[in-house]
Amino acid sequence: MAKSTASKVASLVLRILTIVLLLISLIVLTTTSKTVETDSGDLRLRFNNIIAYRYVLFTMVIGVAYSLLQLAFTIFSVISGSEGNLIFDFYGDKIISYFLATGTAAGLAVTKDLNAFFNQQLEDYEIDEFCSKGYASASLVLIAFLCTAILSVMSSYAIAANAKPSL
Amino acid sequence: MAKSTASKVASLVLRILTIVLLLISLIVLTTTSKTVETDSGDLRLRFNNIIAYRYVLFTMVIGVAYSLLQLAFTIFSVISGSEGNLIFDFYGDKIISYFLATGTAAGLAVTKDLNAFFNQQLEDYEIDEFCSKGYASASLVLIAFLCTAILSVMSSYAIAANAKPSL
Repeated sequence: MAKSTASKVASLVLRILTIVLLLISLIVLTTTSKTVETDSGDLRLRFNNIIAYRYVLFTMVIGVAYSLLQLAFTIFSVISGSEGNLIFDFYGDKIISYFLATGTAAGLAVTKDLNAFFNQQLEDYEIDEFCSKGYASASLVLIAFLCTAILSVMSSYAIAANAKPSL
Repeated sequence: MAKSTASKVASLVLRILTIVLLLISLIVLTTTSKTVETDSGDLRLRFNNIIAYRYVLFTMVIGVAYSLLQLAFTIFSVISGSEGNLIFDFYGDKIISYFLATGTAAGLAVTKDLNAFFNQQLEDYEIDEFCSKGYASASLVLIAFLCTAILSVMSSYAIAANAKPSL
């Protein structure tokens, strides 16, 4: 059976949502910075001082690039009525959703421990605002991940729906 | 078409491998501790001082519990020749593989930044050995994740192979 128009529209909406969420998250993350006053002068803490945040940025860029590519393919397949490449969708959605899951986890994990460490050991430094932006950014990636995970379930079912009976 | 015996045996091997890897990883993680000498006395750093490591432990426990359950189901289905619950396999493998992916990412991210922070700011404290065990543990979870990701692809294809032609 052909992939229904309803599922194509759902894919389209989820892909656009993923792109929007990742772009907002990207802006939040890259503008995260904080100047803390230390005994030896001002110390400027930027997002790229934290290695895990660079990985989160990497997963966002991959996520946006893949989603834009898939958006183009989906629009093309809606217009032309073609099936698209189901195997590419299947593996692509699966791999990208794993990337976004790891991006979320890396972002949340490092922010949580950074926050706890500063609150316990270096109480004088106000880091809460910096960490809030880290949490916000990782949470947006989490929602983008959920969209991609739904797309991954849909692309798995699309293969099942198109399976030959004798396969 | 019925799920072939070959794929059942492959599942069995991958599940056992996942369990073994996660158990070794669990032992490595929970025995990770380091006593550092500070000006204000000895400070004992244990794995559970790091919040992200507790999450990694949580994903391991979930991974082992689920894999043991699936192992029992697979053995039962090999003996009885029954199909098993393909939908449960599909969602179960998918969700657990996401958990293990996030466990890997959280473990690696926090270890990397902890290591970098100590090397830059607190050179006097020898943290490398502690971090090595963190890396080792997270790497084992990574391999367990790869096993589960392969199982997830297999359980997706199992649904396709069993799809009714008119579906």
